[in-house]
Amino acid sequence: MRNIKLIIEFDGSNFSGWQRQPKGRTVQKEIEMAIFKATGEETMINGSSRTDAGVHARDMVANFFTNSTIPGEKFREAINTRLPEDVSIIKSEEVEEDFHARYSSKGKTYSYTIINRYERLSLGHQYLYHCKYNLNVDEMREACKYFIGTHDFKAFMSPGSSIKTTTRTIQELYIEQKGHRIKIFITADGFLYNMVRIIVGTLIKVGNGKLKAEDMENIIKERNRKQAGMCVPPNGLILEKVFY
Amino acid sequence: MRNIKLIIEFDGSNFSGWQRQPKGRTVQKEIEMAIFKATGEETMINGSSRTDAGVHARDMVANFFTNSTIPGEKFREAINTRLPEDVSIIKSEEVEEDFHARYSSKGKTYSYTIINRYERLSLGHQYLYHCKYNLNVDEMREACKYFIGTHDFKAFMSPGSSIKTTTRTIQELYIEQKGHRIKIFITADGFLYNMVRIIVGTLIKVGNGKLKAEDMENIIKERNRKQAGMCVPPNGLILEKVFY
Repeated sequence: MRNIKLIIEFDGSNFSGWQRQPKGRTVQKEIEMAIFKATGEETMINGSSRTDAGVHARDMVANFFTNSTIPGEKFREAINTRLPEDVSIIKSEEVEEDFHARYSSKGKTYSYTIINRYERLSLGHQYLYHCKYNLNVDEMREACKYFIGTHDFKAFMSPGSSIKTTTRTIQELYIEQKGHRIKIFITADGFLYNMVRIIVGTLIKVGNGKLKAEDMENIIKERNRKQAGMCVPPNGLILEKVFY
Repeated sequence: MRNIKLIIEFDGSNFSGWQRQPKGRTVQKEIEMAIFKATGEETMINGSSRTDAGVHARDMVANFFTNSTIPGEKFREAINTRLPEDVSIIKSEEVEEDFHARYSSKGKTYSYTIINRYERLSLGHQYLYHCKYNLNVDEMREACKYFIGTHDFKAFMSPGSSIKTTTRTIQELYIEQKGHRIKIFITADGFLYNMVRIIVGTLIKVGNGKLKAEDMENIIKERNRKQAGMCVPPNGLILEKVFY
């Protein structure tokens, strides 16, 4: 069978996340239904990440196997014409049989965008997290440095997933600021459940003075979820890129 | 009675526009209901613009009269706590009795954002217009120059409104480009029905080579709607500012 790799963009606002589930509209299910309409084959696609409800993706990767004779690069249009507006195939291509969107992945980049202003937020609220308390971005940038490298990030994981190790390597964690807009970028070899959202919640606690940048060292060391910040809402989170 | 001025931000995605109507969810109605809950008064608010379904606003202005004793600047919170997430009062204040959000207005700025790339668009599709044909932005910028000044813009008006004159003054019309993102800003003393969206549709025809920049002179002069470009979808349009 042929192995097809897809690059996918989606707006997670009206999805119950990526993964197929008995109830609720999911990205995986929409794409699988579109492939069925295009090929007549019932297939199961492997996604690089199982994003939660409300999380968006600019560059999600998935793969699936097919007996169809549609050329690899033609799957894009064949699937797109059968997809709703909030999910799009950006690219499709035939790849080696052993490529697996999730297991072959070497890392990912996520972004999280905060609007930091006193006034309530409505415009773009599905893509942004509104923080009304004035954030000290310089202090947040200081805090970022403690996360870079290989650490046990158990303090930054929500319960509910079974994994072998809670050690991950963060290659990059930095903040771009433009006016009220604070955008946090994070790249790692892998992420624990809710890890990005809890790291952002912890950086916000640094930004509003409830924690100091140097507290990060101990929070990481202690591996205690309660010492880290809250898990911020999914809206602001975008899967930006998957690396292979 | 006291006259209260409101500055309003809203996400138009799930609204049937600004103006109260028998059916459909409108921004005006949501705010009037919130004022009723806050004050017990049935009131009618005057909006600076009657934006269409799907159009957004960062800085819409409205005013209303009240006998309530709530201080002017406290209306913001009093109304916000009774509003859904997609509409927010940014500021409230008491103003002179003769202030009218619409009739006192001296001009407005709108923006319209295009994503110009071949690949289909999903992320942010409620705020963006997707154009898959490569646009020549330099040529579009040339075309902008013809619009600046006082002209009869009858060619850039959809039917359906009764007005005395189709002459308006455009103070500014310019384009910002960053990667795939093309953002058009337009400031005028007033706008005809769908004027911004038809000007953008015409600029797109210049960008994809179906019209030349210098054709603008004749299209304006001829006052014939058929010579101008299409009326682009409402998604990309944001009311940025109202001037007094």
